[in-house]
Amino acid sequence: MRSHTEYMVFRTKKRRELVHLTPRLETILEKSGIREGMMLVSAMHITAGVFVNDDEPGLHQDIWTWLEQLAPFKADYLHHRTGEDNGDAHLKSMLVHHEVIVPITAGRLDLGTWQRVFYAEFDGQRDKRLIVKGMGE
Amino acid sequence: MRSHTEYMVFRTKKRRELVHLTPRLETILEKSGIREGMMLVSAMHITAGVFVNDDEPGLHQDIWTWLEQLAPFKADYLHHRTGEDNGDAHLKSMLVHHEVIVPITAGRLDLGTWQRVFYAEFDGQRDKRLIVKGMGE
Amino acid sequence: MRSHTEYMVFRTKKRRELVHLTPRLETILEKSGIREGMMLVSAMHITAGVFVNDDEPGLHQDIWTWLEQLAPFKADYLHHRTGEDNGDAHLKSMLVHHEVIVPITAGRLDLGTWQRVFYAEFDGQRDKRLIVKGMGE
Repeated sequence: MRSHTEYMVFRTKKRRELVHLTPRLETILEKSGIREGMMLVSAMHITAGVFVNDDEPGLHQDIWTWLEQLAPFKADYLHHRTGEDNGDAHLKSMLVHHEVIVPITAGRLDLGTWQRVFYAEFDGQRDKRLIVKGMGE
Repeated sequence: MRSHTEYMVFRTKKRRELVHLTPRLETILEKSGIREGMMLVSAMHITAGVFVNDDEPGLHQDIWTWLEQLAPFKADYLHHRTGEDNGDAHLKSMLVHHEVIVPITAGRLDLGTWQRVFYAEFDGQRDKRLIVKGMGE
Repeated sequence: MRSHTEYMVFRTKKRRELVHLTPRLETILEKSGIREGMMLVSAMHITAGVFVNDDEPGLHQDIWTWLEQLAPFKADYLHHRTGEDNGDAHLKSMLVHHEVIVPITAGRLDLGTWQRVFYAEFDGQRDKRLIVKGMGE
């Protein structure tokens, strides 16, 4: 069995932002030498997410509008008693989910034609970490 | 380590449809010879999902009603500027998630009594692919 | 390759409850002897979930309020024709997702500073099972 682990750090300029990860994941896969297996891509924070969808700017705006409807930024979360104001970011993270598994086949990320991997920052402008772990042979 | 990969193609009659996958996954597991490990079941499209829940028709209707409430089919998604009309399908895919991992124990899918795996088509009537990758020993 | 499987049983006092799993998962990891790999933590029921987020009581109340808004307990789910009254629990399970994968690095659960793993019971007061499967080397 072969495994390979890398960490990425993001510090987004905006509080909420999407970062396209697929090219960086391909580079990591190449370094890993894994030909068959799985790659876990997982945010290490509870106010961020990772998802697979289309790299299309209109859709990305739709996603932000939708997330704001289902898990709105607002003042009255009980979590804010701790001094934070990011209750919405925790809920957005639960909705989007914080991780994906990408299959690895014949040394390549086995994604569909339009599938791309994104890091979703819900409370940025500070260092946030993500782990990529490949496992296979 | 042992790994085994298969692809399925779906072309549903209706635009939105659930397909029960568990029996096919059991067949793939048997072919794979894997006794201990994990099976990734992942849609290769961004307008479809995979989930685990009950095989109960009333619940399935509840799921469709619920998905339509939380991620409605409507005209004014910005994604539709590309000529598509499936913005809702992308959001439904994010909500349901596009993949699951099923544990494999003693040569069997280690699901609970009522757990079944479903492919959820949100924009069908055309060929859509899914990957099944088993990994273990 | 090394794999290790354990099952947990929960019988929560309340119908809806969160159970913090991280310390138990650390104990299982130690027993497994796995140094590099992944740990699948997956509810074996379709009315429960597993998620990663903050261990902060105010946030947990926010999560319950939010889940009740997005997947409310109510009488008129079609699933209730079977005699059940837990339609909401199935939808909450879909929303939260029933499983997570935790990376294992250098013999430890490779979680971020604030990441904790929770079992979310949506229809408890009876025995419910969860599987933990570690895989790696």
